[in-house]
Amino acid sequence: MRDEELAELGQQLRVDAVRAAAAAGSGHPTSSMSAADLAAVLLARHLRYDFDRPDHPGNDRLILSKGHASPLLYALYRAAGVIDDAELLTFRRDGSPLEGHPTPRLPWVDVATGSLGQGLPVGVGMALAGKRVEQVPYRIWVLCGDSEMAEGSVWEAAEHAAFERLDNLVLIVDVNRLGQRGPTREGWDLDAYERRLRAFGWLTTEVDGHDIAAVDAALGEAAANAGKPTAVLARTHKGRGVAEVEDQEGFHGKPLPHPEEAIRELGGIRNIHVDVAPPPPVPARPAPGIRSVDPPRYRVGDEVATRDAFGAALAALGSVRADVVVLDGEVGDSTRAQVFGRAHPDRYFECYIAEQQLVAAAVGMRARGHLPFAATFAAFLTRAHDFIRMAAVSEAGIQLCGSHSGVSIGQDGPSQMGLEDLAMMRTVHGSTVLCPCDANQTACLVRHMAQLPGIGYLRTTRGAGTVLYGPDEDFPVGGSRVLRSGDADRVTVVAAGVTVHEALRAADALAAAGTGVRVIDLYSVKPVDTATLQQAADDTGCLLTVEDHRPEGGVGDAVAEVFADGRPQPRLVRLAVRTMPGSATPEEQLRHAGIDAASITAAVELLVGEAVAL
Amino acid sequence: MRDEELAELGQQLRVDAVRAAAAAGSGHPTSSMSAADLAAVLLARHLRYDFDRPDHPGNDRLILSKGHASPLLYALYRAAGVIDDAELLTFRRDGSPLEGHPTPRLPWVDVATGSLGQGLPVGVGMALAGKRVEQVPYRIWVLCGDSEMAEGSVWEAAEHAAFERLDNLVLIVDVNRLGQRGPTREGWDLDAYERRLRAFGWLTTEVDGHDIAAVDAALGEAAANAGKPTAVLARTHKGRGVAEVEDQEGFHGKPLPHPEEAIRELGGIRNIHVDVAPPPPVPARPAPGIRSVDPPRYRVGDEVATRDAFGAALAALGSVRADVVVLDGEVGDSTRAQVFGRAHPDRYFECYIAEQQLVAAAVGMRARGHLPFAATFAAFLTRAHDFIRMAAVSEAGIQLCGSHSGVSIGQDGPSQMGLEDLAMMRTVHGSTVLCPCDANQTACLVRHMAQLPGIGYLRTTRGAGTVLYGPDEDFPVGGSRVLRSGDADRVTVVAAGVTVHEALRAADALAAAGTGVRVIDLYSVKPVDTATLQQAADDTGCLLTVEDHRPEGGVGDAVAEVFADGRPQPRLVRLAVRTMPGSATPEEQLRHAGIDAASITAAVELLVGEAVAL
Repeated sequence: MRDEELAELGQQLRVDAVRAAAAAGSGHPTSSMSAADLAAVLLARHLRYDFDRPDHPGNDRLILSKGHASPLLYALYRAAGVIDDAELLTFRRDGSPLEGHPTPRLPWVDVATGSLGQGLPVGVGMALAGKRVEQVPYRIWVLCGDSEMAEGSVWEAAEHAAFERLDNLVLIVDVNRLGQRGPTREGWDLDAYERRLRAFGWLTTEVDGHDIAAVDAALGEAAANAGKPTAVLARTHKGRGVAEVEDQEGFHGKPLPHPEEAIRELGGIRNIHVDVAPPPPVPARPAPGIRSVDPPRYRVGDEVATRDAFGAALAALGSVRADVVVLDGEVGDSTRAQVFGRAHPDRYFECYIAEQQLVAAAVGMRARGHLPFAATFAAFLTRAHDFIRMAAVSEAGIQLCGSHSGVSIGQDGPSQMGLEDLAMMRTVHGSTVLCPCDANQTACLVRHMAQLPGIGYLRTTRGAGTVLYGPDEDFPVGGSRVLRSGDADRVTVVAAGVTVHEALRAADALAAAGTGVRVIDLYSVKPVDTATLQQAADDTGCLLTVEDHRPEGGVGDAVAEVFADGRPQPRLVRLAVRTMPGSATPEEQLRHAGIDAASITAAVELLVGEAVAL
Repeated sequence: MRDEELAELGQQLRVDAVRAAAAAGSGHPTSSMSAADLAAVLLARHLRYDFDRPDHPGNDRLILSKGHASPLLYALYRAAGVIDDAELLTFRRDGSPLEGHPTPRLPWVDVATGSLGQGLPVGVGMALAGKRVEQVPYRIWVLCGDSEMAEGSVWEAAEHAAFERLDNLVLIVDVNRLGQRGPTREGWDLDAYERRLRAFGWLTTEVDGHDIAAVDAALGEAAANAGKPTAVLARTHKGRGVAEVEDQEGFHGKPLPHPEEAIRELGGIRNIHVDVAPPPPVPARPAPGIRSVDPPRYRVGDEVATRDAFGAALAALGSVRADVVVLDGEVGDSTRAQVFGRAHPDRYFECYIAEQQLVAAAVGMRARGHLPFAATFAAFLTRAHDFIRMAAVSEAGIQLCGSHSGVSIGQDGPSQMGLEDLAMMRTVHGSTVLCPCDANQTACLVRHMAQLPGIGYLRTTRGAGTVLYGPDEDFPVGGSRVLRSGDADRVTVVAAGVTVHEALRAADALAAAGTGVRVIDLYSVKPVDTATLQQAADDTGCLLTVEDHRPEGGVGDAVAEVFADGRPQPRLVRLAVRTMPGSATPEEQLRHAGIDAASITAAVELLVGEAVAL
């Protein structure tokens, strides 16, 4: 396609963006129009993609990080011939896969975008997969806006990409100088972006984003660069091509005021078709050599931390599943992810202290078909909350591990304590939340995580706990274990993780004093074992939940949700961390929080006494 | 104090860090030792601080961003004479304010640290307060580690500080080249940090962090620089001064193996006292001129979006409270925070698309005594989850507003929908969570937020809703409103925000058909109105919660928690967003999620029918 035809294609993309937004009555045509020439050149000259085979292992990947410019993406699809005009005009309608921001409901969209600053970090994950896992020379093209360059996640990614020498990654920045509510911080100062990216180790080119030949040369150069990632900084006009809106404030995120005139001004509707170049054939990869590693087995009665079992089980999983990759946030010695790293260094990725990049890399790798586990402190996963939320929109079944959960970490104090993680992870759409209390249980749950369709979360603890279960027992997702039970149980204590051990101590003391107490190990917090909890409610009439977590959103809420169906309800009482902890030993912490064995015993005695008094 | 004495002071700080960690049996002495000379020079020569008056308006501020080096901070306090030797050795003990990571339980600690990469963004907030709100020439000194330079939040702050020309901000980076689990990405490549910071617009100096005279010169220069923030990049040795651990891997976060020998090697215990220079007197500020702005009043029956009422109420609040400052994440036109910005431009801070910096700036301003409101989309507040969590540890009562909550935003799709915000905010320690359904209620709640001791959250919606309440009604925090009630109510519908309007429509239709339904507007989700909910349970026996939020962690869980005290429990049924939405109109979204009036009506009919059948 000649340059003149490419310029026409750019106009077609603009017209189609204008039409889509006009049909929808909403959307972001002006943000699409600034990047139309960039997109036209990319599609027709540089992208290698088989639209009939979105899963082709050699396909380049295009991530529209400025997801609000979705009309541009859909206009590209129309030019590529994979959606027709009628489908384009379903934009933003109920049931249409052409959503306001792109999601994988369209087969050519790998990850959802729309939360700005996520495209580049996710692209880093894909580029890492291509270079270091698959060794396939596809390229990752990330088209982002200038406003989103203010997001810290972009700079986490910039650093990571340069450090890993991801020359298969190209960032195209559509510098249209206008954000949502007015000028961006840097305006058209392309040098500001260039200085920063170069300082982070990138190659850069500045171009006029509406000069077809210049854009073509820049993208060609970017694709050919070796040893470093490249950023193409393109000076563009928001609303380009329609005088009424071009480079004007006040037209973000709304249809053009006069779409018919705009379409005329842009030269009318076109039907240019682009034959996108297919990717080169990809040689079949030799099956990776699988080294045999014994799955960890722990002896009942030994003292083992669940984080230790996580590391060992992950390493073992990696030996039988070649698709497992593990990502660390510079705490692999603490989470024990480094045990995997030593066994499988080629599939272990150090993301340093950059939790957004950590989770984004996992999302990118999942989008490339791998099975990522990402681990850091439970507390610091909150740093990546928005990425986890968007991973659910992306249908990216990443597996997360949060270590050092709860006050039981002891002296380090509240900044290091994961006390909100169960709430955060339970609320994620389609998530599974697991909270093991024992090493063999942890190892089993790690194996089950490898089968989960959605996002999984494993909560581990710092300190050692007694191994309760044998190494051959199974702990299905959605199950629980009744650890103490008798005909005369007066109360059921529902615990998870570290509080299971406290509950057992309390139950044994109470049993010795003549009060029967049932104890349920609720290792699967979501989904939760409704039948066992309802049976316990029927049998004992009173459930006492005990969790090393805030009272909101965790085990207590998960249990309460079971009793919302109109059956006679049990008494529900919850023990949880209601104060702001300081430094103290793990034992002192559990006592101060009122979730240790003595607190459980006292609560049960109170409940039983009240029941007697009634 | 002469340079030789300063070197001795540095050794004293090291010895005290070693002693504190040895006494505690845990802690981070080696991370303290690398920065000891930097800290000694800062304390004795550059910090202007009245330890007897931590609230002195002219005090410099020291933020130990590498909070794990707390032994160094406490050693400084001992040198300054505000804690004694016995108190130093309570480090990390139960009840001691000398926690594992610093918190404001100590009067000289303004904000808690320990989640890395937060010190600089919070410092930016304080520096902004000093320069633009208070006009007092105090300096903000942030001492951070090299590992945390990988956090994106540091670069959000770097950009913001340079853009705002915060020459009252000095960043000291302790480049000891060793992170927790081994070498940092950049090692001792100080140039790598220098290039980046300069590219972001900073002045920089590289120094040998153990050369007293060089450090003194660098800090003096940093303090004197005008027009730009300055970073002092200091090459240091982790564990400096003790050969067994100096610049060695494997000694992060643990006491020295041989503390007695180490103390001898460091020259033994010293008792050097530093008379820290006091700040210059601060002239009393003239009271800011308060412009009268009418508080917004809306007419019952009008259609108004709660976000509009938020903006107007905030502007009015700013007129009567000079301490109110407002921070925007480049969406002020959407959240309506810009209404405040137009009324009070001197107290309006544009943070661009950098939500971590947005919340951190609020925390910094709160620590300086101002009353910050920070607003962005509810969905994007998840980006700042870790900063909100740490704000609670800092006891920083910031006020947050999340707009565009729920599926009711319509066509933009799931990436823009706040569906997890209630869960996130309810779990924050000491938080208040408000979810108004009406413009006058919103305005009232904004006024109440100004009185909250802890973190407050206001959830607003994009679309207009009917004004239900008069402008003079009060909506106390912890209250609710019964909007429909009768003696024959069969079910209580508990709604909040947009679902209140759906509940009213359903109740009116059901009443017309002869079924009495109580409707509660649960505008205060935390704390929740226990008495009204329990009365409704007693009266109707069945509560149906309806929320534009995920089923976990929101209104349904808040209501369930009320019925955990052993009283006869009602039937609890919850309607919430259980699927992944796409694009659709607001009405379609509510219908698909099963939270519209028709869904409520159907659910009530089912419940009543079941009750009849029983």
